[in-house]
Amino acid sequence: METEITYLKKPKLKNPILMQGLPGVGNVGRIAVSYLVEKLKAEKFAEIHSPCFFPLALVSPKNEILSLSIDLYYYKGKKDLIFVIGDSQPVDYKGYYVICEKILELSKEFGVKEIITTGGFGIGVEKPKPGVLGALTNLDDIGKLKKAGVFFEKENSIGSVFGISGLLLGLAKRKKIKGCCLLGETIGYPILTDPKAAEEVLKVLMKLTEVNVDLKDINKSVEQLEKFLKDLEEKTKQLTHQFQKPTKGYSEYIG
Amino acid sequence: METEITYLKKPKLKNPILMQGLPGVGNVGRIAVSYLVEKLKAEKFAEIHSPCFFPLALVSPKNEILSLSIDLYYYKGKKDLIFVIGDSQPVDYKGYYVICEKILELSKEFGVKEIITTGGFGIGVEKPKPGVLGALTNLDDIGKLKKAGVFFEKENSIGSVFGISGLLLGLAKRKKIKGCCLLGETIGYPILTDPKAAEEVLKVLMKLTEVNVDLKDINKSVEQLEKFLKDLEEKTKQLTHQFQKPTKGYSEYIG
Amino acid sequence: METEITYLKKPKLKNPILMQGLPGVGNVGRIAVSYLVEKLKAEKFAEIHSPCFFPLALVSPKNEILSLSIDLYYYKGKKDLIFVIGDSQPVDYKGYYVICEKILELSKEFGVKEIITTGGFGIGVEKPKPGVLGALTNLDDIGKLKKAGVFFEKENSIGSVFGISGLLLGLAKRKKIKGCCLLGETIGYPILTDPKAAEEVLKVLMKLTEVNVDLKDINKSVEQLEKFLKDLEEKTKQLTHQFQKPTKGYSEYIG
Amino acid sequence: METEITYLKKPKLKNPILMQGLPGVGNVGRIAVSYLVEKLKAEKFAEIHSPCFFPLALVSPKNEILSLSIDLYYYKGKKDLIFVIGDSQPVDYKGYYVICEKILELSKEFGVKEIITTGGFGIGVEKPKPGVLGALTNLDDIGKLKKAGVFFEKENSIGSVFGISGLLLGLAKRKKIKGCCLLGETIGYPILTDPKAAEEVLKVLMKLTEVNVDLKDINKSVEQLEKFLKDLEEKTKQLTHQFQKPTKGYSEYIG
Repeated sequence: METEITYLKKPKLKNPILMQGLPGVGNVGRIAVSYLVEKLKAEKFAEIHSPCFFPLALVSPKNEILSLSIDLYYYKGKKDLIFVIGDSQPVDYKGYYVICEKILELSKEFGVKEIITTGGFGIGVEKPKPGVLGALTNLDDIGKLKKAGVFFEKENSIGSVFGISGLLLGLAKRKKIKGCCLLGETIGYPILTDPKAAEEVLKVLMKLTEVNVDLKDINKSVEQLEKFLKDLEEKTKQLTHQFQKPTKGYSEYIG
Repeated sequence: METEITYLKKPKLKNPILMQGLPGVGNVGRIAVSYLVEKLKAEKFAEIHSPCFFPLALVSPKNEILSLSIDLYYYKGKKDLIFVIGDSQPVDYKGYYVICEKILELSKEFGVKEIITTGGFGIGVEKPKPGVLGALTNLDDIGKLKKAGVFFEKENSIGSVFGISGLLLGLAKRKKIKGCCLLGETIGYPILTDPKAAEEVLKVLMKLTEVNVDLKDINKSVEQLEKFLKDLEEKTKQLTHQFQKPTKGYSEYIG
Repeated sequence: METEITYLKKPKLKNPILMQGLPGVGNVGRIAVSYLVEKLKAEKFAEIHSPCFFPLALVSPKNEILSLSIDLYYYKGKKDLIFVIGDSQPVDYKGYYVICEKILELSKEFGVKEIITTGGFGIGVEKPKPGVLGALTNLDDIGKLKKAGVFFEKENSIGSVFGISGLLLGLAKRKKIKGCCLLGETIGYPILTDPKAAEEVLKVLMKLTEVNVDLKDINKSVEQLEKFLKDLEEKTKQLTHQFQKPTKGYSEYIG
Repeated sequence: METEITYLKKPKLKNPILMQGLPGVGNVGRIAVSYLVEKLKAEKFAEIHSPCFFPLALVSPKNEILSLSIDLYYYKGKKDLIFVIGDSQPVDYKGYYVICEKILELSKEFGVKEIITTGGFGIGVEKPKPGVLGALTNLDDIGKLKKAGVFFEKENSIGSVFGISGLLLGLAKRKKIKGCCLLGETIGYPILTDPKAAEEVLKVLMKLTEVNVDLKDINKSVEQLEKFLKDLEEKTKQLTHQFQKPTKGYSEYIG
């Protein structure tokens, strides 16, 4: 089985901006981008299925068997938008490269000129108003980001961005697609989702993409998501465990 | 070495139902499906050998060297049946995809229209009469399953099904093969096999596939299996350990 | 880089018996087969190099850089013999399959009709005279093995044989090459090499292959080996560690 | 995505010596070779990008997104030189083979006749004047190395060299490229960088390659590097953790 993009539809888009939000620190990116998808009634047009995801089936509240996937939605507005959301990150490091390659393949097909990735940045404390930190491929755009509310320290404290949020931009840059990463400051405890940080990232996203949605339902949206993601995270940890359980004294048994 | 199906025979089957039972929680699925194979005197017609299994040879009680395999049996009755049983699950997550692909390849060849996977669902306590929980690819079939004794909570508590039991159905669904998963409630302690949960799953299986076998020997059957599986589980854990043993202070040694 | 057999020479051999002894429990197999190679002055004719071994170079006592390899020797006697020895087992489970396939490829090329693998069997105690347990692909040969001194319990206690010693026979059987595994009883503590168990395995090997060597130097031979293997084992553990070091609190850093 | 060499330029070089210095014990090799690159104003001519590196993007102090890479520089002097430096080692053991193969591919293209790898050798104590230990592919060159200040014990205490520093030489030897490894004695505590050991390695490197640079800035150079590498090391550990986190009790969840 190969990693595959399955198209439900091939929309015509004009220089779309691709925006990514997957599970991660505080689920900041996942919440922010999913909320936009929901409020803008963006339409799903493709799914990525891959043997890089955990070998499991999801079961919906109605007892339906579902596959893990990364889902792509589009929205036609002042600027055309593609959204990349999903319930799972790859199991191992090779999978990150595979998934990013597929997203870039799709980006090329739709003429994506800019990529915005999102996530959380753990700072160990809770701020009344979390900031949004940024990193970008082309330093020329720093003014535009500042104007949209992104905070840049004199000497960046980010250092590196792990996972698809970081890797996607590094690989995009080599293919001459520019982009930036928006990281909402969050306490950074495992599992805890952080709607407040997500809200700040959302405000920046709206400015950068010239859309406008009502933010009042974000807490409600998070509650539903939280239960689901907690369950999934717990179980994928269990599975990770299966593949990597350290035990004692193997030497007796290797012939 | 590639993962391969070796055919001993190519039986002619009419829209067979494929039923899977491999080692897992309480070995519920493994016991239930193997018992059916034994009592129906189903005939072995194929083996799957794979480099996704642990790198070892089994030694029979008579000292014979045997390979790990997943074995396929068939039975021609009111409904034709294919059984998938074996002693091993894949070592790592990629292997789950490989094995499921092979089972689906075989399913296509024999015109399988429906897949039933089985397993245990750990609930942390022992019930006098364990229930059988279900999840399915097509919600239309929920009535049929209920009638066969499957219990559906208003809002499912399963969340996800790991391993071949779950993945096989998710992948089958994408290939337009429908199916369901039957999970017997079991205490869920490692190693402990649970014949009582297996018996409840068996009752559902018999109704769904219109076969009938005497359940009185199930405890005897489990005793033989238990010793073998305990030994194998212990040793594969040892091996997993070899590949993943964490130790201290590597930094001194990387040049 | 692929796994490759490099031939130094292609000897003409008549239905040779292939005999394998690699590092493992008590290094029983490694010691026994290497000792035969040394005493029979068997000639090296091929090397297997592979990216399945640990990514390191050995440094000889004279400061020379050497690669890890599995080495093949031959000896022409009453029966022609091929010996498979080396300093390393593969890093992960896939590597075991790759190396076994290469050994079987070579077996086919030289018309090998029989494979003898060797190893230790940890029993947790030290016996004054350790037994040699056996397992075999064709039960017809059990009499021949008993006559050579192999001990078979009424109901075997081996259960399974991990690593190349087991896997090679399982795969050979599928290619219609017969074989057996000889396991010397040993205390089974990690690192400890056990020349006494190796000596018992050697006695069986000599009978089965109709060669005869003086056993008086086996302890001396072990001393040299012991220092080297201890060093290598310690360092490969360190390396394994690098790839698999578990640490705390990753969640803060995944964007 | 494949591992690829991207050329910025194809310089004409005459029998160049290739010199490697990557992160490792005490970062000895990384510091020594990078310092030479800086002081000789060597020119970057190629980059190796690879899915064998950690799936992340670096963020520069100015907030620019950068990819992990291994970088190649050249210098034309009395002897032509190629330098291999970078911020990352591969994630797993297979990656070491892939990266070494690429370096050897490039070596062949530029007619490299000799490879010098560098690193640290942990001795657990701090010496006022650390020695430089050596290992080499061709023992004929031992005199030349001794004259350049390399210390050879009567019976080497190195045993083996892990990672690219060792593997590259083992693989080069099989391709008839000779080489040596220079290991600066260092205390060997994790993370701690050791400019003093690097300085001793540098002195040997200068003699072997007939270049001369002022060593007075080495401490300053290390300070800048130290902060960066500490951050990166900490974070890649976190990521390693994600892929390999052991947890308790998976058995309940495998269906």
